[in-house]
Order: sequence, then structure tokens, then C-alpha cells
Amino acid sequence: MGRGPIHGPTNPMVTPLLTDLYQFTMAYAYWKASKHNERAVFDLYYRKNPFGGEYTIFAGLEECIRLIANFTLQDDDISFIRESLPSSCEDAFFDYLKGIDCSDVEIYAIPEGSVIFPKVPLMRVEGPVAVVQLLETPFVNLINYASLVATNAARHRFVAGKSKLLLEFGLRRAQGPDGGIGASKYCYMGGFDATSNVAAGRLFGIPLRGTHSHAFVSSFTSPDEISEKSLNSLDGSTLCKDFVNQVQTWLQKLKRLRELGELFGETNQSELAAFASYALAFPNSFLALVDTYDVIRSGLPNFCAVALALNDLGYKAMGIRLDSGDLAYQSCEARKFFNVIEKEFCIAEFGKMSITASNDLNEETLDALKKQGHEVDSFGIGTHLVTCYAQPALGVVFKLVEINNQPRIKLSEDVTKVSIPCKKRCYRLYGKEDYPLVDIITGENEPPPKAGERILCRHPFTESKRAYVVPQRVEELLKCYWRGSADNEREELPPLKEIRKRCISQLEQMRPDHMRRLNPTPYKVSVSAKLYDFIHFLWLNEAPVGELQ
Amino acid sequence: MGRGPIHGPTNPMVTPLLTDLYQFTMAYAYWKASKHNERAVFDLYYRKNPFGGEYTIFAGLEECIRLIANFTLQDDDISFIRESLPSSCEDAFFDYLKGIDCSDVEIYAIPEGSVIFPKVPLMRVEGPVAVVQLLETPFVNLINYASLVATNAARHRFVAGKSKLLLEFGLRRAQGPDGGIGASKYCYMGGFDATSNVAAGRLFGIPLRGTHSHAFVSSFTSPDEISEKSLNSLDGSTLCKDFVNQVQTWLQKLKRLRELGELFGETNQSELAAFASYALAFPNSFLALVDTYDVIRSGLPNFCAVALALNDLGYKAMGIRLDSGDLAYQSCEARKFFNVIEKEFCIAEFGKMSITASNDLNEETLDALKKQGHEVDSFGIGTHLVTCYAQPALGVVFKLVEINNQPRIKLSEDVTKVSIPCKKRCYRLYGKEDYPLVDIITGENEPPPKAGERILCRHPFTESKRAYVVPQRVEELLKCYWRGSADNEREELPPLKEIRKRCISQLEQMRPDHMRRLNPTPYKVSVSAKLYDFIHFLWLNEAPVGELQ
Repeated sequence: MGRGPIHGPTNPMVTPLLTDLYQFTMAYAYWKASKHNERAVFDLYYRKNPFGGEYTIFAGLEECIRLIANFTLQDDDISFIRESLPSSCEDAFFDYLKGIDCSDVEIYAIPEGSVIFPKVPLMRVEGPVAVVQLLETPFVNLINYASLVATNAARHRFVAGKSKLLLEFGLRRAQGPDGGIGASKYCYMGGFDATSNVAAGRLFGIPLRGTHSHAFVSSFTSPDEISEKSLNSLDGSTLCKDFVNQVQTWLQKLKRLRELGELFGETNQSELAAFASYALAFPNSFLALVDTYDVIRSGLPNFCAVALALNDLGYKAMGIRLDSGDLAYQSCEARKFFNVIEKEFCIAEFGKMSITASNDLNEETLDALKKQGHEVDSFGIGTHLVTCYAQPALGVVFKLVEINNQPRIKLSEDVTKVSIPCKKRCYRLYGKEDYPLVDIITGENEPPPKAGERILCRHPFTESKRAYVVPQRVEELLKCYWRGSADNEREELPPLKEIRKRCISQLEQMRPDHMRRLNPTPYKVSVSAKLYDFIHFLWLNEAPVGELQ
Repeated sequence: MGRGPIHGPTNPMVTPLLTDLYQFTMAYAYWKASKHNERAVFDLYYRKNPFGGEYTIFAGLEECIRLIANFTLQDDDISFIRESLPSSCEDAFFDYLKGIDCSDVEIYAIPEGSVIFPKVPLMRVEGPVAVVQLLETPFVNLINYASLVATNAARHRFVAGKSKLLLEFGLRRAQGPDGGIGASKYCYMGGFDATSNVAAGRLFGIPLRGTHSHAFVSSFTSPDEISEKSLNSLDGSTLCKDFVNQVQTWLQKLKRLRELGELFGETNQSELAAFASYALAFPNSFLALVDTYDVIRSGLPNFCAVALALNDLGYKAMGIRLDSGDLAYQSCEARKFFNVIEKEFCIAEFGKMSITASNDLNEETLDALKKQGHEVDSFGIGTHLVTCYAQPALGVVFKLVEINNQPRIKLSEDVTKVSIPCKKRCYRLYGKEDYPLVDIITGENEPPPKAGERILCRHPFTESKRAYVVPQRVEELLKCYWRGSADNEREELPPLKEIRKRCISQLEQMRPDHMRRLNPTPYKVSVSAKLYDFIHFLWLNEAPVGELQ
């Protein structure tokens, strides 16, 4: 609880104008009807988990709080809004806009990085209706993609397994610049280990990874290009005057090995030049992309020749990256190659050389690789991860549930789209082995469920679906993240690494059948008996009665 | 030609650090090998049209030019890069980084808003290899999504037809804040008419649209809430003291109409209050969302009662928005309703009331609506449009094609991934009726194709695919957009409205069979006979020869 100033959103383009015009049109209509200060409660929630799964990761909260902590309209913003609304709008409205901020707004939210489920309010936003309405679009924008991509990252981690290194390589394919920056942040939150995105590394302290591309390899034409060929040994004791020659010598030795020599003939010499040159620049961290010309016939032997020459000088090469073709096969061949060298030349650990794979990976290909058997240690994942290719949008919504202490409901012919009215509280009930068992939503003033007590949990819309639960433990989900000027009553915004930890530990806590890729068991979300009755009373009250003809 | 200063990118987060770490790792290796100033030529292109179509719109160029026009690394950027690279990197490299800019870079590009095809270089970027390499990631990021979403917009326009108003409503579902801002800009470029996104409207001068949401409707509980009920007539001659009463009177009249009265009973009074209140705020531009409770039984009669009361005072209501259910059916019912009123009460043009439809629209649903028959005038499209749901990524790549005047090629087991080497020129050849016929890529120094002369066009990789063409007109595609300090030799960056015009007119110029949604005819992209021979000479030269065992 408590805390210092809150900075503005990461992206300076996130301002009160990053909203739909109708939020301002409505603000005017509320103001004109003298309703603008009526106290409203909105719930932010979603209706269906993405990617055919049964869970989602909640992300983007901090950016929302940063927006409202700095929420004011500047004079030029107001001039623009005035131009955009009908000229009949009264001047006094714009004076009102000039004065608005979020000091009367309260926000209760589930902590960022939590595992979440459909229909449960992720944020409950209370305040003057006109102000809270303006927050709808930016909040939904900031939560939607953040939660979607964090969930996607968590799903990729689940398939890859805990022991693999997962690298986010998506910047170039992301939907715009902060599609890329957001992806790096929220993939790290969802369980990735590092990113290639320098800007994101700097903004959020995410570990950075990256070596070289095909262009680097093809920029060399021959080993003769390399003018400075000398390299000191790691301990400084000796100087190798012609490292390139040392590499060529090793290449010949490899060629003469019975088990390897048959695999390749003349390797590509421009590739050899590129590898040698890269090793001269980074003798301590040599990792080469080996598929520019041909992995088995050129890239792999060239890499090993350079790695062996480095080894002569006390340096340990890091490994290879594969970026095309049959990754399972190539990785197994590469591992054999490394093992032969370890054995033939008695070089300890050469067989453990790291193998990174990239090239259009996704949940399916990771799963297929696992089934085929592979020797990859580390996966670089881009397009499918950051654009959420399998499902590029999450349907987070923001619905009015109460105004002036009056509960409100939004009806729909589609029952799943009916909103749950009233200001509410939400709890997670834990069962045996501390697995989350069910989330329950109650009215604001109902007594909270207690550990050890029997509670009736009802499906919000289906009469027949209900169950008694005796929780081992009860956790209230919504915590206060903003209470206007009452600055010391709100939860701290934890650093990204803490949020990531929370996310990983919450995922591990889930019962395995909710998490599996195929046909996962749905996690139950329920309402209390009292709230159930109230929803259905209000529903009948608001819906017009038809006449069949 | 010529021009003033170029501002930085729209999103201030687009800086030289918005790149992959490996671009800096390579920069160091180039520098260490004294290769960093070698003159390189990179081509930016893509391999496959998105959405199962046969064309793409080129977008994002201006943002790339804005980045390089302001491309320098600040001291704190360099400190961060130093921390991110191995500590063995030499100090002099960071001094070098401090001094880099794009004054030695040249960029040739196809004008933004053009219709483009696979394999044709969209941008040719020349300059010191280390500097140009740094541009790869941001350029690809800035072009990929921009081109993808502009193409998506153009496809939606194609299905909707020219006469419909198309509104981009995607901000809340976009992949992050500038996923939203970019979507608004590039959808407008691709042929949309307006956006709901206020920030984008302001940044780019895009027309704004928006009225009210379900929350506005459900924020009202009863007509008694409305305290100020008076409304002046449009000409100021009369004052209606109780507009709400006037609305109620009209509602009763509607109820008594034989053709309408059967359709509805008691309408929802909180909805009626919301509509009346909104009309009091915007008597000149009353447009109501009619599906909060029930379109036919509540929303539509309530809307018409308010529209008729407004009509009494000389105001013309604008129309309705439908956001759920069967849009074709509802729009037809609404049109009938309006027509009955026009006829029964002799209100000219009431039947022409505008009908806007939204709710998860996409190419397929627009197409299905057209086939069913509908009365919608205007479509509000969000999620599917801005996230490019049908295909959320475009595969733009950036490949080295020449260094130090030496042509370079990137091979791949997948023939479609082999790059076309050399610095090149590109032409569009036009045939009868001025339809674009084929794009041809030639070596930089080949004589350009001429109108009226017979030219052999060859498929770059398939020997047997070739054709003679006698173009009626020849257009060179790549124009100079940046030539370092030679500021007056570059093309002007046109305003967004000009780019939009170019895009729309280029789309109209295409032969219809390339444009259809199902099984469109591929547009041909070819190379000259000379370039064909050279590609295959180089290919054989670089590829290792295998031995079957």
C-alpha cells in the first residue's frame, strides 16, 4: 500500500484522446442532461478464452493506471474535440472538459499476471459516468492485446516445456511499433526468457538476445577479405597470427573424419569467411546461423571448424541457429556432428553445443517437434507469437452495471452477451492440494464466502447448473489500484519481473486438466444464489414481452 | 521534387533502438572487420499476397523516411547498447555509432498507396552496410502492418461496394495503442471513409464518426429523469416546452398504425429516455443505437417517435445503428418501418433514414449480407479489419542483394525463398485499356523497356514460364525518396488524402479478374532475360554440390 508518483503510459500516444469519438459525444449528452456526475460502475471482462484454451493471463493493468494517474485534457485537445463535435454544442461543456481528471475514480482490479476466466470482472471502474465512459476505449485497448499475447506466450511455454529457452523474435512482424514493444513486454510476462527487441529491453529490463542474420553471411565473398586475422587466446598467453588459417586446417581435419567427411564436400567459402569474421569479433560468444547455403553440407562443418579453432585458444563457442527446413532432423544431425567431434578430438562438452531453432514456429510446430524428437535447446519465435496468429483479438468489453446505485443490465438475444448487473465482489475458491476450484461473483454487500463453509455456486444464466463447494481457502480477487487522491490506500504497481513470477506461479498452480492443449476442462465461474436471483429478476423486468403472431 | 524538413515518426517510440539486437551485434562485427562502410544494397519485398488475394497495397513508406531523416543515436542509447553487447567490444566502436546517420543512405521506393505484387522490390535501400542493416527491423515493422491493414481495408471496400459508407471502429480491439492509430490511418488510405479514433482523426485529419453506446442507453432508468425537456425549433420560431411528451404522443400514434402497431407493445422506457435525451443534446444529428433491449419491439419504435418529434421542430434525424442479431433482416424491417411512416404521415425522405450496421463484420459477412439483400447504408467495422483477423501478418523481408558492387544471393531449399540478386530496376507494363499487364525487374544498367517494343518477360525461377509483351505504356516503379543530403532530388511525401486517392485510383485501374474474392487471376511478375540468366549463374555458383548416397 502507498506510493510515489505514477509515470504516464509507456507509449506517449496513449492520451485521453486515444478514445472513440462517441465517448465525447456521450459526455456531451450526459452533461447536457446534467447526468455527467452520476456515479457509475463499469465492469471490464471478457466472454471467451482465446486459442481454444480454458484460461487467460490478465495483462495491461499498469498501463491503464498510468493513463488515469495522468488524465487531463490539454487546451489543444479541447480545441480539437470542439471542432469534432457539432457546432451547436455549448461552450460550458468545454470548460467542464478542461477541469476533468480521475480524482473521483476508483479502480478495483485483479493483480496483473493473474490467471483469469470469462465473465469475472477483471477491473471494476467507478466514478462520474462521463469520465469513466471516456476511459472505456483506452482501457479495453490496453488490456485486450496485452492479455492476449501474454496468454499466447504462456501457451507456447506450456508446449515447449520448462527446460527450453524461449526467445521472442517478433518485432518485425508485429502489428506496428508498439505491437512489437508490447509483445516483448507481455511475452516476457507470460514466461519467455528474452527478446531481440532493443527498445523493449531498455524500457522494461528484459534480457536481450541476438547474433547475426543471413545478410551478414552473404555480405562476405571470400576469406581473403579478412585483413585482421590475429586473435589472442582467452588467457592472453598466446597470439594466433592467422586465425583463418587455423579454421581452414580444422575444416580439413573434419573432412578427413570417416563419420563426417562423407557428409560434405567443398563448403561455401564466403560463409566460412563470415563465421571466422564473426568469431574474431565475438570470440567469447560465437553463435552462428548455419542455413544460408546448406546446413549439413556447409553451415555445420564451417561452424565446427571455427568453434574448434576458438577452442584451441581457450574460447568456448556457444552454438548454432537453424532458420529453415526440417528443424527436428537438422538438430539431430547437428547433435551427432557435435558428439562425433567431442569424441574424436576429446573436447569436453562440445556435444552440448547449444542449438537454437527459429522459422515460423508456433504451438503446433513446437508440439510436432516434441513428438518427432529433436535436439533443440532454444526456440526463437516471432510472427505467430506476437500477432497471435491463431486468434488475433480478444473480446474484452466494458459494461455499465450500476448507476446512481441502480443496477443496470445489457440484454442480448445471445444469452452469453447478457451482462451481470450490480457492483460486485469476486472470490477464488481453492480446493484440495490448493488447486483453484471455482470463481464466484457475489453482490457487493453479501457476506464473503469462508474457508470450510459450504457455498452454493450457480451458473449465472443456466438454472440447472449449480454445485455446493466447501473451499479450503478463499481469495478475494479485486484489489484497489486507484482511489483518486487517497494515494496510500492503493496496491503498489509491482515491477515486471514480479508480475512475471506471479504469472508463472499461478500457471503452475492450475489443475493440469484445465491447461492441456486438446479438450481442456473448463474452469467454473459462478454467481452466488442471491446474485443469481437478482440477475433474473432484473432481466425479466427490462425485456419487452413479445407476441407470437 | 525538393522540400522542407521531415518530422520524426508519428510514434515517438520509433527510434534507432527499435530494432533487433543482432543488428547491433552485426554492426560491431562489420566494424571489427573494417567492412562497416562497404556499400550495400538491400531490397525490401514480400513473397505472397495476403488474404488469399492477388494484390497488396504498399503503405508505411512515409514513416520509414521520417525515421531515417532523424536517425541518430543519443548518448544514453549508446550507453544502453554498450551494456547489451559483450564487454569485450572495443570503445572505438561506440564512438563510431555516435557519429552515424543516414546521410550516405539512398532510398528508392514505389509510391505509398500503390498496388503492389510479390517479389518486386518495394524499397531499395543503399548505403554503408552497418547503417542499412540497422534499418532492417524498423522498416519491416513499419511496412508490414501498414501494408497488411491497408490491403484489408481495400478488400472490405471491394466487397461493400463504392456506394456504402465504411467506418473503421477498431481502436479497442487493435493490437496495442498504435495498432489502433496505424489501423485508422491505413484503413483510410485503403478506402475507408472515417474512423471513430479521435487521436487518429487529429493526427491525420481523418473524418471522425460516432454517436453513443449501449452504456448510454442503459444509464437511463426513466423519462422522469430528464429535467430540462424544452427544445427550440430549428428555425428558432417556436419552443417545444415538453419534448419528451411530444415523443410519447408520437409513440402512441405509431402504436395505433395498423401496419406497425402489431409489431410492438410497451417499449422500454429507459431506452426512450436515453433517445430523447440524446436528441435534446444533438437535435441536428440524432443517430441512435437501437438494439440495447430489442430492435423491433423497442429500439425502432422509440427511435421513430423521437425522430418524428424532432421532425415537428424542423430537425431531420440521421438514422439508426444495429449492433447485434440478423443485420439483413433487421435492416429490411427498419426500412419498411421508415417507409410506412413516410407514407402514413407524409414525411418526405423519412424512408431514406440512414442505417448503420456493426458487430463483428468482415469480408465474408459483408458478402453474405449482399447476397441476402439488406438495407444498410453504412458499415462500422472493427476487430476483423484492424487485427487482420483472416491473416494477421504479412511476410515483408529485407535482403542483401549487392555489396561492394558484388551481387549476392540468399539460397534456400524452398525455391520461393531464394532472393533475386543485384541492384535492380522495376517497371510496370500496361496493355490495352491501360490495364497493368506485368511487372518486370531488370538489372540496373539494362536499357529500360519501351512502349510499343516487344519484351521477353521470364518467371524468375521457372524456366518454362515466359511470355513476350508489347506494352502500350511503361512506368518505372522505384522513385528516389531519400538521397542523404541531396535534399532536392527526392520525391515529396504527399499528404494522406493524396495517397488515399492514388490507392483508390490504382485499385480501380486493375483488371477485374485480379481483384475478385474467389480464385482471382495471379498478376504476373517477371525478370528480364538477362537478369534471369544471371540469377541462375549465381545460384549454381553459390550452391554446394551434393552427393547422393
